[in-house]
Amino acid sequence: MTQINELDTPSLILDKPKLEKNIAFAQARARELGVVWRPHLKTHKCIEIARMQLDGACGPATVSTVREAEYFAAAGITDLIYAVGIAPHKLARIDALNRAGADVKIILDNVPAAQAVSRFCRENQSKIGVLIEIDCDGHRSGLKPNDPAMVEVASSLTDGARFLGVLTHAGESYNARTTQEIEAAAASESQALTDACALLSEAGFACSIVSVGSTPTFVRTRKRFGSVTEYRSGVGAFYDLVMAGLGVCKVEDIALSVLVSVIGWQEDKSWIITDGGFLAMSRDRGTASQSVDCGYGLVCDVEGNLIEDLWVKQCNQEHGVICRRDGAPFDVKAYALDTKLRILPNHACPTAAAFEAYNVVQGQTVTAVWQRCNRW
Amino acid sequence: MTQINELDTPSLILDKPKLEKNIAFAQARARELGVVWRPHLKTHKCIEIARMQLDGACGPATVSTVREAEYFAAAGITDLIYAVGIAPHKLARIDALNRAGADVKIILDNVPAAQAVSRFCRENQSKIGVLIEIDCDGHRSGLKPNDPAMVEVASSLTDGARFLGVLTHAGESYNARTTQEIEAAAASESQALTDACALLSEAGFACSIVSVGSTPTFVRTRKRFGSVTEYRSGVGAFYDLVMAGLGVCKVEDIALSVLVSVIGWQEDKSWIITDGGFLAMSRDRGTASQSVDCGYGLVCDVEGNLIEDLWVKQCNQEHGVICRRDGAPFDVKAYALDTKLRILPNHACPTAAAFEAYNVVQGQTVTAVWQRCNRW
Repeated sequence: MTQINELDTPSLILDKPKLEKNIAFAQARARELGVVWRPHLKTHKCIEIARMQLDGACGPATVSTVREAEYFAAAGITDLIYAVGIAPHKLARIDALNRAGADVKIILDNVPAAQAVSRFCRENQSKIGVLIEIDCDGHRSGLKPNDPAMVEVASSLTDGARFLGVLTHAGESYNARTTQEIEAAAASESQALTDACALLSEAGFACSIVSVGSTPTFVRTRKRFGSVTEYRSGVGAFYDLVMAGLGVCKVEDIALSVLVSVIGWQEDKSWIITDGGFLAMSRDRGTASQSVDCGYGLVCDVEGNLIEDLWVKQCNQEHGVICRRDGAPFDVKAYALDTKLRILPNHACPTAAAFEAYNVVQGQTVTAVWQRCNRW
Repeated sequence: MTQINELDTPSLILDKPKLEKNIAFAQARARELGVVWRPHLKTHKCIEIARMQLDGACGPATVSTVREAEYFAAAGITDLIYAVGIAPHKLARIDALNRAGADVKIILDNVPAAQAVSRFCRENQSKIGVLIEIDCDGHRSGLKPNDPAMVEVASSLTDGARFLGVLTHAGESYNARTTQEIEAAAASESQALTDACALLSEAGFACSIVSVGSTPTFVRTRKRFGSVTEYRSGVGAFYDLVMAGLGVCKVEDIALSVLVSVIGWQEDKSWIITDGGFLAMSRDRGTASQSVDCGYGLVCDVEGNLIEDLWVKQCNQEHGVICRRDGAPFDVKAYALDTKLRILPNHACPTAAAFEAYNVVQGQTVTAVWQRCNRW
């Protein structure tokens, strides 16, 4: 069996025991809260991981691209929400999946989109389930939870366009500075949908799906609130330095890393140069605004043990520069040429997206190679 | 023929007339300077574009990954420099290319690497051309131009490891604030190699390749300096907002854009929401430190005309938020649902790397789809 040390670099490493532990935690969390867990597959985009999360069931799950929907549906995961506001030109691909037996639901937050979906369903004799997106925290899309426009949107769903419920995402929880702020974001996320449900219900639109979620709010919510039926979470399968910075996981829970090789040094600056640049790590600097900036990543040895005080200070396209966080001199040549190091990423989603496959490891052995479904 | 408006989104758009103009400019620049142009193929990773740059010749060209070397060599572009300090475990792949008829040269900046290459060549009866990397501006790798260690490195090249010359990259020119600073960077880049050549030459090591280059210094150098034999440049095939911010090109020269669709609005904030998030644009924020920050990109209509005052203010994984730079209100719904917009990127290299292929356009017509060779 291939050992990590034998892999070419840069390569993507997925620690299977950590992955299993993270998935088990999320499953237990959902049971504890008494909600359905609808994992967001956008972080991993990988059928083997989705099957672990769903214990082999056909859903429920969440996707962020039509291509993910196509890929997962073809592999038998058919109960999906495509959780990005629909662009009408994408309806034909969604409809093709549903005609082939899937149940891909879409989201939208405006009357023109609802009309476009209804028109599409009328013209094609199609059936598509629709959720209205609610904006619980000003993060990006969605109607405010008290906006009466949502009744107009729901009323605009006709023909095969079937109103199913509401969905929100507490994206601002990523910017929380304390556990209390995350707990507050979780409460306000659920309250927003409880309010939206009440407003729609009064107007005669019952919500069968009431979907909230972000990894921070899922991990830190104290209880199930209001009429919430399900939680979505994505990055919690792997975790990353942003989540560790939020206190949502520990650094040692991070299942994903990028294997790099030492290619040189700048001894006078105490720099180690590696072949792990920004195409491998991504340009994400999510920890830059947190209390502890982790640069382009923290550094582990090939066994995955964190090397205290080192970070990836800068990246070019195919170069990474590792040094001490405090800039202090150290014996850089103790890291010999071609030494393998594992870099923990700021944000697992863009880092994983740089690769086509995971090298799944248990200890130092690569036990499997799992493909990803990238792009659109 | 497919029209841009018919493409699914997000998609990568390459304006062929602009590409041709940018390539012709670089070719003319090299003639004017009396140097060889060795284009860096890492920006586009695309055989059709490489053939245009090389007028169908087998080189010279530069690559940043072994995979690029394999891809381009298989397509007949065999005179290559792999311009990232060699990790010895990659020598077997390089050697396989050279045994199949390519001439892939490598770079290094330290004695252990030179010894490892020599040992590899001895043990495998291989021949590999080697350049010593010089650090002209403290940007990342390389020996200082006056560091006598370079003689030790050259002396450590034995057996089939053949010393060919020196290479540097004025990476700090990307951080210049004025044309004068770029001109100074160009001069010091060439001076660094002239000095290194002299030092090596005194020790009996003649440089047949003296390779400098970055897009800014190539565009802005006033003359060929010293013993320089060739210029490398990469991003100049496409240009991008960082290059426009440096004054190296105009915004209208940028050949690369990402096609996105309007999926909604936040009217009270005057936001347009699109399906162009950070997986499509990349997380690169190279203009953030320039005098004009372009956010995650500037906005053009589907015909490629810049829409003044708009920018992509923020990105999530699959969402982009467009608003006015000054935050002023405007009629966001004038951009109807599913309207196509083209976003100019901060940095062409990571943005292009998010896609597998270019939709090559002339006017509104997609005339070809060209594949990229991503990853490692």
